[in-house]
Amino acid sequence: MKFVFMPDSFKGTLSSAEVCQVLDKTVREVFPDCETISLPVADGGEGSVDCFLAAIEGEKIYITAKNPFFEDIPAFYGLIDGGKTAVIEMAACAGLPLIEDRKDPMRASTYGVGQLIAHAINQGVTKIVVGLGGSATTDGGCGAAAACGVRFYNGAGETFVPTGGTLSEIVRIDCTGADIPEGVEIVAMCDIDNPLYGPAGAAHVFGPQKGAGGRMIEILDTGLQHLASVIQRDLGKNISHIPGSGAAGGMGAGMMAFFGARLQMGIETVLDTVHFEQAACGADLIITGEGKLDSQSLHGKVVAGVGRRAKQLGIPVIAIVGGVDSAIEGIYDMGITAVFSINRLPEDFSVSRTKSRENLQATAKDVFRLIRTFIERM
Amino acid sequence: MKFVFMPDSFKGTLSSAEVCQVLDKTVREVFPDCETISLPVADGGEGSVDCFLAAIEGEKIYITAKNPFFEDIPAFYGLIDGGKTAVIEMAACAGLPLIEDRKDPMRASTYGVGQLIAHAINQGVTKIVVGLGGSATTDGGCGAAAACGVRFYNGAGETFVPTGGTLSEIVRIDCTGADIPEGVEIVAMCDIDNPLYGPAGAAHVFGPQKGAGGRMIEILDTGLQHLASVIQRDLGKNISHIPGSGAAGGMGAGMMAFFGARLQMGIETVLDTVHFEQAACGADLIITGEGKLDSQSLHGKVVAGVGRRAKQLGIPVIAIVGGVDSAIEGIYDMGITAVFSINRLPEDFSVSRTKSRENLQATAKDVFRLIRTFIERM
Repeated sequence: MKFVFMPDSFKGTLSSAEVCQVLDKTVREVFPDCETISLPVADGGEGSVDCFLAAIEGEKIYITAKNPFFEDIPAFYGLIDGGKTAVIEMAACAGLPLIEDRKDPMRASTYGVGQLIAHAINQGVTKIVVGLGGSATTDGGCGAAAACGVRFYNGAGETFVPTGGTLSEIVRIDCTGADIPEGVEIVAMCDIDNPLYGPAGAAHVFGPQKGAGGRMIEILDTGLQHLASVIQRDLGKNISHIPGSGAAGGMGAGMMAFFGARLQMGIETVLDTVHFEQAACGADLIITGEGKLDSQSLHGKVVAGVGRRAKQLGIPVIAIVGGVDSAIEGIYDMGITAVFSINRLPEDFSVSRTKSRENLQATAKDVFRLIRTFIERM
Repeated sequence: MKFVFMPDSFKGTLSSAEVCQVLDKTVREVFPDCETISLPVADGGEGSVDCFLAAIEGEKIYITAKNPFFEDIPAFYGLIDGGKTAVIEMAACAGLPLIEDRKDPMRASTYGVGQLIAHAINQGVTKIVVGLGGSATTDGGCGAAAACGVRFYNGAGETFVPTGGTLSEIVRIDCTGADIPEGVEIVAMCDIDNPLYGPAGAAHVFGPQKGAGGRMIEILDTGLQHLASVIQRDLGKNISHIPGSGAAGGMGAGMMAFFGARLQMGIETVLDTVHFEQAACGADLIITGEGKLDSQSLHGKVVAGVGRRAKQLGIPVIAIVGGVDSAIEGIYDMGITAVFSINRLPEDFSVSRTKSRENLQATAKDVFRLIRTFIERM
């Protein structure tokens, strides 16, 4: 028997890697000789590189790069596919936890993220996956672009590295000196649909959690709008209304405009990056899951994503979840054979949240026992 | 595929028959051509005869008999096995609901239950199953015995029908005229362990719910103790400390002393009565269940009982339950393949109790889908 585990995290209780560990331990109690593959799902935020490296062979590259305030810090990214693909989490250089109580979206830069990208390009990678998420920045990706040779000019004709507070000073953008080779495919993992600016844009929706309020939000929003117009004029790209352009302080827009990246749903990116089809080949069962399966789960989330791809391979998928709403009938058409909730007792989440691990283990054990029984009888 | 459903009730939400209905409807959505057998589990109390007749072919016999206060009422019992076996619920003549607000354990009698037994005997049955439970009486089964020809004498040498309040007046018991043939096997269904009298006896433990309090409990307890001593002297049977003798106001003791009945765990009685082995023959799966599976479930409850008997037949059993405690590992040794809880969301019972039916249906559907998938792959 071969089992593949590819769960999302159970938000607030268990990480994807922890869910994999519990499933792997439990399945061996029931099928001692089984083969297992654990593919914890990275969400693009902090910890995504480690998550990829837990799912697929590779190495972690450590370099010195800039934090959001241009201070040198130890940073990292992952190299997989024998060095052909780099996996980067922007949180490694632009993450909120890096600056603790110094939140300042007017000054915070994605410059370090560009350094990671540049370093990876110098290693000769042909593909770069950048996880957007957890950022402290609202610079529209200008910092990252500057680190890779894109030049931003102000009214005095000088080059500068624009940040949230100085986006409106950009007069001209010159990409001719940028060192992003044609042959490098860049994918940005992004699960949100927000446009670059406006009421649903990066500044208004995500500014507050980065320390922006009132007047500052307006300045950031105006800056992003200005950036979009200069990009449109100088680079000929209209990125402002593309869903996801407002991700990570406009990093979505910047990745598209400056790096030629395409934005992709996180789960699709992960499935591609961990070579899902190769890992799942010959599997008897795939187990996925998430904290709560609801109508949203039908739209591009992990369970539906895994189900659709597994369905093409003809491999059954079980979802083990922290909770499941009624009215998720559609999930069965997406390749999900069955859904099991880990709630062993009728208990409120405030009670059961401390028991997620043991409840998951008990539920998985019963699922595996049921499968074993029917396999043995056939 | 052949499925057998034999669940206990989900206390407070679904009857055993309702659980069977949901399972039967759901399994047909997944296995349209399957064969199913529903064996709802009678608990010995009100509704048990209907439960037996839902599980096994038979007829319902209606007769006029006495209620607890010697008033004529329409009563009934069931005839199964082609008329060879009678199933009787004592609640049909001695049940609390029959007297509503006229609770009076000093006067209430099991006389009508004896009439049902006598009628069944006259039909030529060779076995009688009597469900103890839900009674309004504390007469030690003397009323039922009197209806079948057992004579109770008082100090004046007169025969009378003792009730709770007059048990102490019994001076002599004469069974010589009783019309209970040797060849009739009588089984009393009983799931409680209480002795006839004393602090854990019928009067002290169950008296209050029948309307007894304070001094009345003492009178009833003393009466039962006196009855035991007369039974010991006149019939040569020591029944007072046998577990279950205190069931149903001492009906357990009376069934043993006057009718030669044996007390048997309810689930064993049901398994025998519905000819479990015959029904389960050739089944691919048996589904049992109960409201809450806990350490008590390992001791003679429905799930463990079904599991043990199915194990001897080599048929897998799944328990679908309203809740399952940790520390029920032992249940797997009792023939239970897997346990699934119906709690789809982390919700307190106060919230989920109204959703038992849909939660059961959703859980069962996923179980059936999982089974179908692995059967089809093998």
